[in-house]
Amino acid sequence: MIFNNVYVKNGFSVVGPKEKEGNLGKFFDMCLENDKFGEKSFEKAECKMFKTAIDGVLKKSGTPPSDIDTVLGGDLLNQIVSASFAMREYDSSFLGLYNACGTFAESLLLGSCLIGGEFKHKVVCISGSHFSTAERQYRYPLELGVLRSPVSQWTATGSGATLLTDNPKDAECRITRGTAGRVTDFGIKDVNNMGAAMAPAACDTLMQFFYDTGALPCDYDRIFTGDLGKLGKRLLAELMDGNGMNIDDKLHDCGAMLYKDRQQTYQGGSGAACSAVVFNSYILDALRNGKFKKILLVGTGALLSTLTSFQGESVPSIAHCLEVVACG
Amino acid sequence: MIFNNVYVKNGFSVVGPKEKEGNLGKFFDMCLENDKFGEKSFEKAECKMFKTAIDGVLKKSGTPPSDIDTVLGGDLLNQIVSASFAMREYDSSFLGLYNACGTFAESLLLGSCLIGGEFKHKVVCISGSHFSTAERQYRYPLELGVLRSPVSQWTATGSGATLLTDNPKDAECRITRGTAGRVTDFGIKDVNNMGAAMAPAACDTLMQFFYDTGALPCDYDRIFTGDLGKLGKRLLAELMDGNGMNIDDKLHDCGAMLYKDRQQTYQGGSGAACSAVVFNSYILDALRNGKFKKILLVGTGALLSTLTSFQGESVPSIAHCLEVVACG
Repeated sequence: MIFNNVYVKNGFSVVGPKEKEGNLGKFFDMCLENDKFGEKSFEKAECKMFKTAIDGVLKKSGTPPSDIDTVLGGDLLNQIVSASFAMREYDSSFLGLYNACGTFAESLLLGSCLIGGEFKHKVVCISGSHFSTAERQYRYPLELGVLRSPVSQWTATGSGATLLTDNPKDAECRITRGTAGRVTDFGIKDVNNMGAAMAPAACDTLMQFFYDTGALPCDYDRIFTGDLGKLGKRLLAELMDGNGMNIDDKLHDCGAMLYKDRQQTYQGGSGAACSAVVFNSYILDALRNGKFKKILLVGTGALLSTLTSFQGESVPSIAHCLEVVACG
Repeated sequence: MIFNNVYVKNGFSVVGPKEKEGNLGKFFDMCLENDKFGEKSFEKAECKMFKTAIDGVLKKSGTPPSDIDTVLGGDLLNQIVSASFAMREYDSSFLGLYNACGTFAESLLLGSCLIGGEFKHKVVCISGSHFSTAERQYRYPLELGVLRSPVSQWTATGSGATLLTDNPKDAECRITRGTAGRVTDFGIKDVNNMGAAMAPAACDTLMQFFYDTGALPCDYDRIFTGDLGKLGKRLLAELMDGNGMNIDDKLHDCGAMLYKDRQQTYQGGSGAACSAVVFNSYILDALRNGKFKKILLVGTGALLSTLTSFQGESVPSIAHCLEVVACG
């Protein structure tokens, strides 16, 4: 997909205390002191982060809420209730999306179609997650203190929102091309090892993007995957190498970047917040200040549920790719 | 949103035994003899209905699977696993959506943007649900035999798929305009009474559509809501009347139409299958054979989860509206 007039006006990121202490702490717009965020439940805190991210990106860009045509996004909770409940507060239309941790890339892709196809002027793309809501929904009660697998990742707490517009004035960067991914399944059944499940999806979508566009890895300053983690990132580099595309020196993973080693997240961050908060902080900053001229963002998602795992199914995965180019 | 070149090539509907015995039984393309569909679990049966609907619409329209650029859709299961797992079998890209029972209308809206914005040539829009998977995920174990509330609806078993294309040749009808809805919440906390929760959302989106387009109810042969049920349909008619728009003689509800009174579904059908199977059978048939020239489809969704209800939240709702015009 080619987009001619899709501009990123601004981005906003809100994260939890653990994310603040990580490698990218100084880049985030807002950091919670406590991951309950003054609410009665972690779920309500997650919902509040969504509203904070939407309000944040609007304020940062001087855009009144009434100017936003549509919000596109979702989260990891059953029935994407964080995004849906947050949207009660706004008069914009809402298009709920779910591609697991690839939801943020999906929202940028569909948001770019709404702007690029001249259906809308201003849209907000958003996703997020919360360690404590995801952990108790997908894995174990928090109080149980279960030992984590060394191949596991840590669901990031945060929410990231991007304002897309058809107006080039004061834009930070442009979304120029994209490839929607297909569902791949290499038979991984270890639900802790999401990186291994998602790496083939990222490879498939990247190869398709390079094939469709004729672009090469050397055309980009960085290729950011969403949340493959350290192991998954290594697997992707190997898979790409096997396809004759060496991306070792270009490949960075939002999940692998997020935390410090001493934070004991094992393979790094994951969750629908991961690529959303890294894109809307570190990546947009670098595109604005000239550090990057052109990057790829490859959002990755593992499309399982607790029910499918209990029924013995493997983990299907997906990845969506976007080309983002600095405006300066 | 205005769409200039979005054509409905064909639709396919597969339903369960109860839906076959209902008012629209003769219109469906395929009816299951048993709602396990030869699978080990109801969830796997739901996933198989998705594949059946996609294969069905491709076969009916003589389109090879390799011609489909993208599939857009979702279902009611946590993490929309029916749609996601079905997509393992196809090479098309996948964009997962979730607006509860409004997911089918959302898929037609975004599918129309992909075609109308010239990003894709052929896309499949799909959603579905299964009584037995929804009941045990959202309400009670099936074996418990809980008495149902008189305001409740029956989650329809089925899946409906529509092939959208930019090619007018042999098209059944066109999608010409649409309005994405916003999230409304009138404080309804009775999770059985979805019709009452969703009626204000349908009213809000319909009024917005009429305001944006200048169209009037008299311009349409029928206005189909998704799954308000009998009570919700009455509430919508009253709400519209209160806004100075009498739609009593135009308003039909896919849920209210689906079953016979003696089938004891109380307010009628609901679920992500509801509008999907009625649109892809009865409505497309009537547009093809000249019975209808122009209709509105207003897909409605209740955006709750079991967790939000347990946490004392009310039921936010959404509705998306599409104008569909016969080609003949």
